[in-house]
Order: sequence, then C-alpha cells, then structure tokens
Amino acid sequence: MTESSTSTSSPSLATPTNVEDIRLQLRSWPEVEHYLQSCRGVIVPLGSTEQHGPTGAIGTDALTAGAGALEVGRRTGVLVTPAQAFGMAEHHLGFAGTVSLQPSTLLAVLHDVVLSLARHGFERIYVINGHGGNIATARAAFAQAYGTAASRGLPGADRLRCRLANWFTASPVIKEARSLYGEREGHHATPSEIALTLHLEPSLASKQRPLPEAAPAGPIHGPDDFRRRHPDGRMGSDPFLAQAEHGERFLELASAALAEDLRQFLADAEPAD
Amino acid sequence: MTESSTSTSSPSLATPTNVEDIRLQLRSWPEVEHYLQSCRGVIVPLGSTEQHGPTGAIGTDALTAGAGALEVGRRTGVLVTPAQAFGMAEHHLGFAGTVSLQPSTLLAVLHDVVLSLARHGFERIYVINGHGGNIATARAAFAQAYGTAASRGLPGADRLRCRLANWFTASPVIKEARSLYGEREGHHATPSEIALTLHLEPSLASKQRPLPEAAPAGPIHGPDDFRRRHPDGRMGSDPFLAQAEHGERFLELASAALAEDLRQFLADAEPAD
Amino acid sequence: MTESSTSTSSPSLATPTNVEDIRLQLRSWPEVEHYLQSCRGVIVPLGSTEQHGPTGAIGTDALTAGAGALEVGRRTGVLVTPAQAFGMAEHHLGFAGTVSLQPSTLLAVLHDVVLSLARHGFERIYVINGHGGNIATARAAFAQAYGTAASRGLPGADRLRCRLANWFTASPVIKEARSLYGEREGHHATPSEIALTLHLEPSLASKQRPLPEAAPAGPIHGPDDFRRRHPDGRMGSDPFLAQAEHGERFLELASAALAEDLRQFLADAEPAD
Amino acid sequence: MTESSTSTSSPSLATPTNVEDIRLQLRSWPEVEHYLQSCRGVIVPLGSTEQHGPTGAIGTDALTAGAGALEVGRRTGVLVTPAQAFGMAEHHLGFAGTVSLQPSTLLAVLHDVVLSLARHGFERIYVINGHGGNIATARAAFAQAYGTAASRGLPGADRLRCRLANWFTASPVIKEARSLYGEREGHHATPSEIALTLHLEPSLASKQRPLPEAAPAGPIHGPDDFRRRHPDGRMGSDPFLAQAEHGERFLELASAALAEDLRQFLADAEPAD
Amino acid sequence: MTESSTSTSSPSLATPTNVEDIRLQLRSWPEVEHYLQSCRGVIVPLGSTEQHGPTGAIGTDALTAGAGALEVGRRTGVLVTPAQAFGMAEHHLGFAGTVSLQPSTLLAVLHDVVLSLARHGFERIYVINGHGGNIATARAAFAQAYGTAASRGLPGADRLRCRLANWFTASPVIKEARSLYGEREGHHATPSEIALTLHLEPSLASKQRPLPEAAPAGPIHGPDDFRRRHPDGRMGSDPFLAQAEHGERFLELASAALAEDLRQFLADAEPAD
Amino acid sequence: MTESSTSTSSPSLATPTNVEDIRLQLRSWPEVEHYLQSCRGVIVPLGSTEQHGPTGAIGTDALTAGAGALEVGRRTGVLVTPAQAFGMAEHHLGFAGTVSLQPSTLLAVLHDVVLSLARHGFERIYVINGHGGNIATARAAFAQAYGTAASRGLPGADRLRCRLANWFTASPVIKEARSLYGEREGHHATPSEIALTLHLEPSLASKQRPLPEAAPAGPIHGPDDFRRRHPDGRMGSDPFLAQAEHGERFLELASAALAEDLRQFLADAEPAD
Repeated sequence: MTESSTSTSSPSLATPTNVEDIRLQLRSWPEVEHYLQSCRGVIVPLGSTEQHGPTGAIGTDALTAGAGALEVGRRTGVLVTPAQAFGMAEHHLGFAGTVSLQPSTLLAVLHDVVLSLARHGFERIYVINGHGGNIATARAAFAQAYGTAASRGLPGADRLRCRLANWFTASPVIKEARSLYGEREGHHATPSEIALTLHLEPSLASKQRPLPEAAPAGPIHGPDDFRRRHPDGRMGSDPFLAQAEHGERFLELASAALAEDLRQFLADAEPAD
Repeated sequence: MTESSTSTSSPSLATPTNVEDIRLQLRSWPEVEHYLQSCRGVIVPLGSTEQHGPTGAIGTDALTAGAGALEVGRRTGVLVTPAQAFGMAEHHLGFAGTVSLQPSTLLAVLHDVVLSLARHGFERIYVINGHGGNIATARAAFAQAYGTAASRGLPGADRLRCRLANWFTASPVIKEARSLYGEREGHHATPSEIALTLHLEPSLASKQRPLPEAAPAGPIHGPDDFRRRHPDGRMGSDPFLAQAEHGERFLELASAALAEDLRQFLADAEPAD
Repeated sequence: MTESSTSTSSPSLATPTNVEDIRLQLRSWPEVEHYLQSCRGVIVPLGSTEQHGPTGAIGTDALTAGAGALEVGRRTGVLVTPAQAFGMAEHHLGFAGTVSLQPSTLLAVLHDVVLSLARHGFERIYVINGHGGNIATARAAFAQAYGTAASRGLPGADRLRCRLANWFTASPVIKEARSLYGEREGHHATPSEIALTLHLEPSLASKQRPLPEAAPAGPIHGPDDFRRRHPDGRMGSDPFLAQAEHGERFLELASAALAEDLRQFLADAEPAD
Repeated sequence: MTESSTSTSSPSLATPTNVEDIRLQLRSWPEVEHYLQSCRGVIVPLGSTEQHGPTGAIGTDALTAGAGALEVGRRTGVLVTPAQAFGMAEHHLGFAGTVSLQPSTLLAVLHDVVLSLARHGFERIYVINGHGGNIATARAAFAQAYGTAASRGLPGADRLRCRLANWFTASPVIKEARSLYGEREGHHATPSEIALTLHLEPSLASKQRPLPEAAPAGPIHGPDDFRRRHPDGRMGSDPFLAQAEHGERFLELASAALAEDLRQFLADAEPAD
Repeated sequence: MTESSTSTSSPSLATPTNVEDIRLQLRSWPEVEHYLQSCRGVIVPLGSTEQHGPTGAIGTDALTAGAGALEVGRRTGVLVTPAQAFGMAEHHLGFAGTVSLQPSTLLAVLHDVVLSLARHGFERIYVINGHGGNIATARAAFAQAYGTAASRGLPGADRLRCRLANWFTASPVIKEARSLYGEREGHHATPSEIALTLHLEPSLASKQRPLPEAAPAGPIHGPDDFRRRHPDGRMGSDPFLAQAEHGERFLELASAALAEDLRQFLADAEPAD
Repeated sequence: MTESSTSTSSPSLATPTNVEDIRLQLRSWPEVEHYLQSCRGVIVPLGSTEQHGPTGAIGTDALTAGAGALEVGRRTGVLVTPAQAFGMAEHHLGFAGTVSLQPSTLLAVLHDVVLSLARHGFERIYVINGHGGNIATARAAFAQAYGTAASRGLPGADRLRCRLANWFTASPVIKEARSLYGEREGHHATPSEIALTLHLEPSLASKQRPLPEAAPAGPIHGPDDFRRRHPDGRMGSDPFLAQAEHGERFLELASAALAEDLRQFLADAEPAD
C-alpha cells in the first residue's frame, strides 16, 4: 500500500482535535467533502432510551454512546454523526419512559444511515453502541445495507464496511468493572454505565441510593416476562456502587480501546480503484 | 372540566424548571411513572442531518429542534425525549454529509416512538420539528400510529393525540426574520436558523463569510434536481446576515410561542374515563 | 428556452380538447408514446372514499378530484390517469362506508404510480387531490419516489417532478366559498365540496336537508376521537347551503386555477439531453 | 336457515335498482349503516391500467370491471365501491401508459380495503376483477386480510369472506367469445374485452383497424421478455373482430352470471351471533 | 435455434442421474458454476407445514413436494434446491402444529430465492409446489421478482422465467386419483397426497384408521371459519383409502408429467447474447 | 414449582424416542394437541444454502442443523419442525449456488414461525442453527415476535421464550475441533462442519481433495468484498482434514450439549395461570 493510499484512509491520526472539529453536526458540506479526500471513516453513535433501574437514567445508553463516540472522534480525528438515541428496547417497554423501535424499524434506520453515508464516499462506518439490545439488529442492518449497495450498483459498494463497537464490552472496561464491582456489576443498569452517566451528568448523583439485592440476570424475552423477572428493571446489578470518578475512568478506557480498534479498521482500507 | 382533571393534564405549568428536570434521558422510570400521574404530555424533538449551504452546519435542524424543545420543556415542565436527529432529507443527498431516512423509514420511527409513549399512558405527543422536509412524513406517521393504536385496542387509543410544531414557522419567528432579513431570509440555510446555531454553538461563527447571491427558492424534488438548481445548497438565503444575538432572540420567540401552543394542546386533554 | 424545448414540454395548450382525448384510460399505448414526444406531463386524480356527514356522499373526494382532473386535462390537453379513489382516511373509519388505506399503503401506491409513469418518460406528475388527509402521505410518497428513481439510476430521474394540487385550496375556490358560506363552510363535508357533487351527480340533491349546528372543526387524530368530537361526521360545516349551481362555479374556478398552475409546472420543464 | 337470517344476508334481491342507489360513492354514511342491517355484502371492482395492444384502450380492465360491478350491483341491490383502477401490471410496463402497482403494494391495498369494510360489519367482500394479472395478488391479499382480522380480534373475523370473480372467465362469456371469435379471442387485448369497451365508450370505435397476425399467447414473465415476445402487446388476439353490440352482450352475460354467483355467496352467510 | 444454444439450455436430459448429483445441497459452488455452463434451470420445492386431517402428517405438502422435486431432478438432471417447508397456511392455523408464513412473508422469501438464483445466471426457476394455498402468493412473488430484476438492471433480467408446477394437479395424477377414490378424493388431506406420504414414510401407516364422513369441501377463508366448517381439518376427503402403493404410483405419474413439463420449459430457453 | 407443573413443561425426557416420533412433519394435528398437554417446547432447525469452499457442500448449514435438531429431539422427546434451509447469506452471493434471504425477509420468516407456534400454545421455541450469518437476524426476529405477541394480546405472550442454539459453538464441539484441527479449523467451510456432512452424506467424500492454504479469516462485509478476500470461499480453513468419523463424533458432542441446554430451557418453564 502506497503512502498516498494510507493517507486517503485516515485523517491526521497523531493529533487529537477539538470535539467541535469532529462533530458532523458542526461541519458544513464543503468541509465534509474536503474531509473525504483524506479519510473515508465515520463514527455513528447508537444508543437507546430505556429504563435503567429505579435510580438510573433512561438515557444512559445514548448518553454513554454519544460521549464515547465524541471522545473516540477527538482522539482519532474521525467525524462523528449525531447519535441515534432511540434503539431496540422492546423488552423494556414494561417500564414507563422506555421508547423502542421495533427491530424491523431500527434495521431500516441503520440501513438508510449507512446507504446515505456510502453515497458520499464513506467506506468505513464505525457504529459505537451503548446497548446490548441493539447488537443483533445492527448486524442484520449491516448485511441488508451491503446487499442494497451491491444491488444498486453503488460505486464503492465493494469497499463498504461497517463495524459495531460496544464500548461496554471493550476488554479494559470489563476488566475494570470486574475489579471495581465484581459480581455486582450485573447485566443491566450496571454500576459501570451508571458511573459513566454520573461523570457526564452530575445532576444524576442525587438519584443514587442503596437498593435491595437485584433480581439475578437471565435471558431476555418479551416485556411482560422481563418485568416479572426483574421487577425494578435491574439485572443482577448494584448501581449504588457507581461513582463519577469511575465513570471518568471508564470513558478513558473505552475511548482508548475503541480509538485503537477504529485505527485498525481504517488502516485496513484499500485504495480506491 | 373539573380541577382534578385539569391537574391530570398538566404539570405545574407556572414554574419554569431546570433543564435537567425535564430531560427524559435524565429521569428514571419511577420518576416517569410519577410524572404521568399529573401530566400526559411529552415533547419529541425532530431534526435532520443535512447540508445547510456552504457555511451552515449540517446539524442545524437537529440542534435547533433540540434546543427549542428543551426550552419549551423548561418553561412548561413537560418532559422532553432525546432528539431524533436523522430525518427525511432525500433531496439533500447530493451534498456530502447529508444523512437521510427514507419517508417509509421515518414513518416507522415516529410510529414506533408514538406507540411506545402511548403504551405508558402518554396522550399528548408534541413533536417540535426543525426541518420542513419532515412535515409530511411526520403527519403520515401520526395517522399510521392512531390506526395502530386503535386496531391493537391500546387503552387510551381514543385519547391519543399528536401535534407537529415547527419552531421556524411560529409567527413571531417569521415576523422577526422578515424584519431582520427581509427577502434574504430565503427558504433553506436561512439566516434565522443559522443565527440560532451561532447562539447555540459559538464555534460556528468562524464559518461565516459573505456569499454570492443564492439561487432562488423553488419547489423541491429529487437530489440531482436540487443540486442543479441550488449548486451551493442554499435556497434564496443569505446566511451571512445571521448573528448569534439574533439566534438568542429566535430561541426566545419560538419557545414562548410553542410553550403557549403546548399549554393549549395539554389543556384540551380530557379526563380518563 | 428555445421554441422546440417549449414544444416538448407541452401539448397544444391553446386548444381545449375533448375529455375523451385526454383520458389515459381511452388511449392506446402507441398514442401515449406519441403524446410523450410533445408533452411529458400527466395528471393523476387522487380522492378518498369516506364519510361526508349525514347528507354528503361517501365518494365526494374522489368524484370532485376526478371531475377537476378531467376538466383541467380538457383545458390543457394533458393526459389524465384514472383516479385513485381510495385514500388515507383512517380518522373517518368510525363511520360506516369509509374505506381507508394506511399511510404506508398509500405511500406505496403513489410511489409505484410515479415510478411507472417515470419509466415511460413522464417527467411532470401533477396530482389533483380532493382530500386533505392525503396531503402529507402524498408528499412523503413523492420524496420516496425521487429517491427510488435516483437509486435505480432511472433515465430522467433528475428531471422527475411531482406536484400536489388540491382543488379545494385554490385561492379562487376559497374566496368563493367564503363569499357564499362564510364561516359555515367549515372543514369537512363543506358546502363547497358538497355543491360540486350536486353538480356532478344530480341524484344527490335528494339527500339535502337542514342539519343542526355542526360540531366545530378541530385537529384530527384517531377514528374514535374523531367520532366523539364530530358525532355526525361534519367539522363546522353546513352542507345544506350547497347548491348545484355553486358546484358548477367551483368546478370552473378550480379548473381555471389549476390549469394555469399546471401550465407553469410544465413550462418549467427542461429539454431532454 | 331462517327467514330472518336470510333477510340479514341480502337486500331486496328481487328488485333491480338504480345504479345510483348501489354506488357507495353516492351514499351517505347513515345510509350505509342502514344498509348493513339487511345486507353484509359489498362489491369491489378491481381493474388495471395497462396497454391493450395497438388499438385497445389502456383503461380496458378498469372500465370493464367497473361497468360489470355496477350492473351486478344494480341487479342484486348490493353496494359497489369505487374501482381500484391501478392493478398489478408489471409485465406490461414495457409499453407506454401502463401504470402498475407492485404485487406487495396491491396486496397492501386490498388488505386495507377489506379490513376497512370488515370494520364496519361487511362480511362478504365480492371483488369483480377485470385483469388476469391481479388474480394471484388478490388471493394472497385475502389470506393476509383474514390473518390480520383474526390476529386483531376484529368482531366478525370468523365470518369475513372474500371472493374474487373475474367477469371474463364467467362461463357464458367464454362460450360466447369462442363462438364469436374462435381462436382469435387470444389472451390479451381480446376482442371480447375490447368489444365491451366499445359498448361502454363509443369514441373508442375510431381506433379499430385491421391488424397483422398477433404473436401467439404464452406464459407471462418480466416486462422486457413480454415486449420481445409480444411486440405490439397482443397475445394471440384479433381485437378488430370486436363490435360494440358484442360488448353489450358480454356485459349482459357476465352480469347475469356474476349476479347469480354473488347471490349464492351471500346466501351462504350465517346470522350474526 | 442452434445445437449449441440447445445444449446451453439443458443438461444431459437423456440420462437419469443419481439423486445426489442433482441436490444443490450436495454440490459445491464450482460444481454449480460448471453446471450453469450447460443448464440454466433449477427446481425449487415448495411445501407447507400444516394440519392434514386427524390422521394425515403435518408435513405432507413439504414431503411430497420435496420427493417430487428430487425425482423430477433425477429424471432431467436439473438441480434441486432444498425445500421451503414453511408455506402460506393461514387458514389452517386453527389446528395445532400448523406453521404459516403470512402471504407478504412468503412473497419476500420467494422473491429473494429467485433473485439469488438469477444473480448466478439461473434463468428458469421451476417451483414444484405441494400446497394449493401457496399458488397465489408464489405467482405474486414471481411478478415481484421480475420487476426487481428489471429495475436493478440485473444481467439476464429479460431472460428470467419462473414457473409454478403443482404435482397434485398434473393431469395423470388427477385422473388416477379420480379412478382410485372418485369423489372421496376431496380437497384437503386427500387420499392421493396421504398415499404419497405413506410411500415416503412407512411409519405413517400406523395412523391410518377409518374416519367418519368428512365435511364437504368449500371455499377457504380465515382460520376460525375453516375450523368451524371443517372440524377435523379434512375437506371432503377419505384419507383411509390411501395406500403406500398408490403413493408410489402417484410419484411416478407426477414425476413423469412434471419432468416433461420442465423439459419444455427449458427448451424454450433462448441463447444468451 | 410443583411436580405437575414440571411435568407440563417437558415430555418423558428420560426415554429417547424414535426420530419419527419427534418430527413435526410426521405428526397429525391431534397428536400435536396431545403433545402440548405435556410439553410446550419445540425445536426449529435453521440452516443456510451457501457456498462452503471449493469442496464443501452448499447445503452444509442446513444439513448439519437438521441432523443436530433431530438428534436433540430424539434424545429429549421434543418435537422438531422442518428446517428452514434458506438463511441469511448475502455475503456469499458472489459464489454460484448460494441462495440468500435478506435480513428483513428472514426476520419476517422467523417472526411468523414463532407466532404460529405460539398461537398453538408452544412457549419454548428452541432454534438450532447451523450458520453464523443467521445469528443476528434470528435474535432480532425473536425481539420482533415478542413485541407482536404482546401487542396482539396473544394468550401466553408473557410466557413465550425463544432461544438460539448454534451447534457449532457448543463448547465440546469447539474443544474437539481445536484438538483435531488446531488453527486449521478456520471460520468458514471448517473441517468440523464438513466432517459432519461427510458423516451424514457419504457421497460427499468424493469431493475431498487437498487444497492450497486458505485466505485468512476476517470480518465479513458485502459479497464482492468477501469474494475478493476469500477467492475460493474458505476463511482460514482446511476442510481436507475432515473425516466422516469426526463428523459422527461432532454430532454426538453437539447433540449431548444442546439436549442438556434444551432441558434447562424447558425446566425454566412456569405453569400456565
């Protein structure tokens, strides 16, 4: 791979930039056109709007995905789209405030987002996800988008690649969570994600209070089944353990890991014909 | 209508609240459950992610809808969901950075959002919109949602009402824009919306520069037609006229008008059977 | 624009033709092929099949849209397809006889109609609409059709334009209705539309009878909400004021206004490459 | 079956009525509500808008279905909805003027039409069809509609029945066509259907002219395949044989046969619980 | 047609092959690539999984379609895909064990199967069907697939042809069934299809027992209507008459007839450009 | 949980049964009705029809899923539906013979299968899967099905649970594959799955031959990207290592592991209200 082709696959990766510089929302279209001359990558934050236990914020997954995406963008210089804050949360619909897209709807959303970006020449779509319930549908959407790109004969269809990166499953994050919380990390409304929201939104601290033992984690099915098994919305977690400083650390760990992962994703880029 | 029925349709409207208090993302599910005992209204900001001329921000419509929604929420005490930042912008796809949902996709998104909220007992869904291109699809989605609510036999289906409020067509906003910019307000990448983004995101000021006369506004069709008619993305507008202080004023005018409109929308509520 | 390009965008506009000559249903395919050499425009009447109060005809919107379309076609020489008589009338489903397509269905219908016509080389699709409830969905369908035409690489995709024209909102029509009926025009089952049906279908005169004050107009939501607010289906209207001669006049006014609007829509046509 | 149950399943079948009386479009909703007390049947004409050879009218299938439906309605007193004039004609899209709904779209249309009618209490939906290409999709739509009615728990879901009646395959029609035209009846743009249009629309007579031998009929596949095999759109037919008087006779034969078929369809009705 | 074009349209038809040789499941992709050099045909078995009366196997339609397809493949050397065992059986959902795809779903399945095969160069898709309820939807799916192939500009779109062949309506099969069972053949859970399953799966013999007179056949509507009219699932049939030897004979008759039909379908092939 | 409730959630688990006894295809509807009195579980095999390298069978994933399902059924006495042999294989469409359902289509298929089974009272749907590409879509489909079951008010909606079990990721299988093949197991067209097909279909042995080093495994994107990276279809695997005896062992290991997993899935069942 020639030097110029490397340069087409990545922005000035060495130099962290301002958050303003990598928010797609704050760019103009000529700036994006210019950006595409040196980088074909873009970050799409994907969250959810769903209950997070009796003390956690309903926006936890979108807040954390959005913050992680901006920090990864800042470190890598890769553009970040606005977050898709509504995700697939059908199983949480038994709790007030949850807003869910059906899987078929979220599939269509991500399909359209990928196709829009691919039309402009983006070839590496890096989705930073904050919600386990989105994983399956997001992957299905990528497959659907590849198929559409190919059947439409979109230029660059064969170079289009999407990647799903869950900040909460980055190995340094999991390691730190285990170290801090052990088994009390649980599987939903976890102290690690709650900690990150405490760091991002200090007002949330006032909700923190000791909670009884949570119902244990288990497989996830429909909304009524979920609420019966997990009456307060938690799955084996103790969010009272969360602290804002932990959250700051989680953001650092996740961003570092995902930034490295994104760099490799971009480096795999092949020169345009 | 009895006093108690009034009180079920509205929060303490007299007292403006903190923004944190009305962001659904920062609430827990028990807080939402409690909120629903006194108010059945909710605000959903709807934006778009699309080119706004050579100097405007791609996120203009989502930034402005989001800010307007939070301010209306603060004034009325009505909960605000996160913004749906991707909207229907098919005609802008000829410009780099635009991300568009097909009308059928956006229809499904808004349908699912409304049905999710209605399931919890929300009966007044107030969509604050920042993009003209969303209007038709949003209204179609409301009709689809009413139909689904009825055919599913959802409790409260007959009390479910959605309302679309475009901040940029509020009459005090239009009046002020005419007064400030006259004909140079135009129809896309207008100085009024750009001014609002300058107020919200000071870093955008650096993009401002004088521009040649814009192509005149006209009907909107497909992406290639749009780009041919409007080569730099503007429709008859002169965004260089925009100033941050104007934006502050537009936010004030829009929020006041929409808050009043929302209060009437809520007051129309009827007591549950 | 050269004379020849003008001639490609329009039939012999000066000479009103027989209704038979402009009904697509009465043409053969070679005649349509020949027609396309001098005009790329076509009229699509769009109606609805829904209750129109206790004395109005269920077919009002399709009858009026169809008659208006034929008259506009006769005056301009532009071909008229058969009417799509079923429209989006979900909110009227609480009244016997209403037949409604869901918004997603009507969107698909109009999408397919536009794509079929565009495939043959039609570039100006002029939808004459008789029902307010269709407006949002029709506009969403146009956007969807433009997107499909572009992504399919349809020749002429960049020249394809659709326009929605509501006969009942043509300004001479509104002016005349205000003059004849004042506030009693109302918003559904209006005397103006009923008058037009009396002109078109004399047998309807026998249904006319004085009615009590109608429920006032208001926003439109779901079917049960609609029926509760508007128990006899009317929205603030007094259809007993309607007379067949008024209807004749409305047809004249609407057709003249829409014919002029259509001429401008066609004149905007650009020559094929 | 008791007399009263018979009376609920059928209008005054003995007395032919005026066409105006059975056009749903010319009824008001209270009249439909009243009608439903004595008859649960309704006729839906289904046509197509597609090429019918070099001399046939593009509207043939909708014109004939519509006329047949009105005549059957007149003879039986059963209500007739407006015609769905756009059908499934994908294979004719190679000829100018053809307008086709994709099968998935037509399926949705008929599904929604049936569900709308079923909601009001109609239990016998009798679709009079003018186009062979609609048959498969219409039947699929009926199955989809039954399924939706059942899964929605629609009252009367178990009594809902749809029936597809093709006027052109009624045995007296086929017999007469064979007698008049023999093998030259062919399979598309047949003299029998053309004759019926000549009866209905005298202006069409001017298109009639001798044609060369048509390409033989064969299986129907995609549009390009169709046009290659059938360059002028006909399938083995000689429409020049058609005469208006034949058409009058076909209308008589088809209407008599279908009216009898409809009576049996209605007689099978069971009393409501 | 030249000899070479004939050879491209058909494998060595004279020589029956092993079943292993024509099962697509047992081929590798290079073998399929090689096969396509001499034959563009492929067989797709389509069944259903639905009740077949009190003694018949739920898998009857898939078992018989699959066996017929393999035997036709063996005789003609044409490749056979695996069976689509779930079909459209909405009307049988009132009986335990029935698994049904909605018409819109089966339409999508067959659409995707045809498009997948067409992409590889298959031009003759021969669907051997075991269930009457699939017929309409399969035909609708073919039309949808032709349309997609054309609008995608798929190479060979104009040569793509699909054909539906129901083994149970092959005329030698019908003749034999009439001869063996007369009127007691009926229309669902027929002795002919049950006989074929007895031949294929000897263990089924133990279910055979005399049954009371079946409810008479009639039109098919929704699941509850079906169960009420046909309480044990049979439609006028006497499956106790079925014998395994009959089944062997039916398989022979059906395979011979369909193999001949398939040969003609392939012979109609035209040379690639 | 009482003894009787345990017995309602499971058949006589101690006694392996004949394969014929647990094939849904070979049961009658009264037998299924009877079965449901003692067990609410059912196994659905899910495969794919896609290239498996230059020597592997296209049906590998459906053959192995089907065989595994039958063996698990035999060991547990749980009913097994026919296999869904077409899966989501968009990325393999660059190789002849691959048949793929789009993710949205497979989602609809599994949704309809689950809803059909749930309607009869099945509450534990155990999908035994043979293809990694199906995983995401299958999980999305489960979420969609739970949502539909809940919104339809299906009895037992809150007890409906689906579980996806991939035979090839059962830990004893992975351990054995690592032991036999080490790194040469690879990720597609693996020796373990090929071995299983050699055991099931001895005729496949003739395809086995030494192959050059495979392209290394990597992330999966669109079909053209896949073929460019993996020119012969393999991902880092050496299928020549596969032997039929290995396959027998893999079947044993997978079936034992999944049978145990299924027993636990069933034991979790709760008594009906």
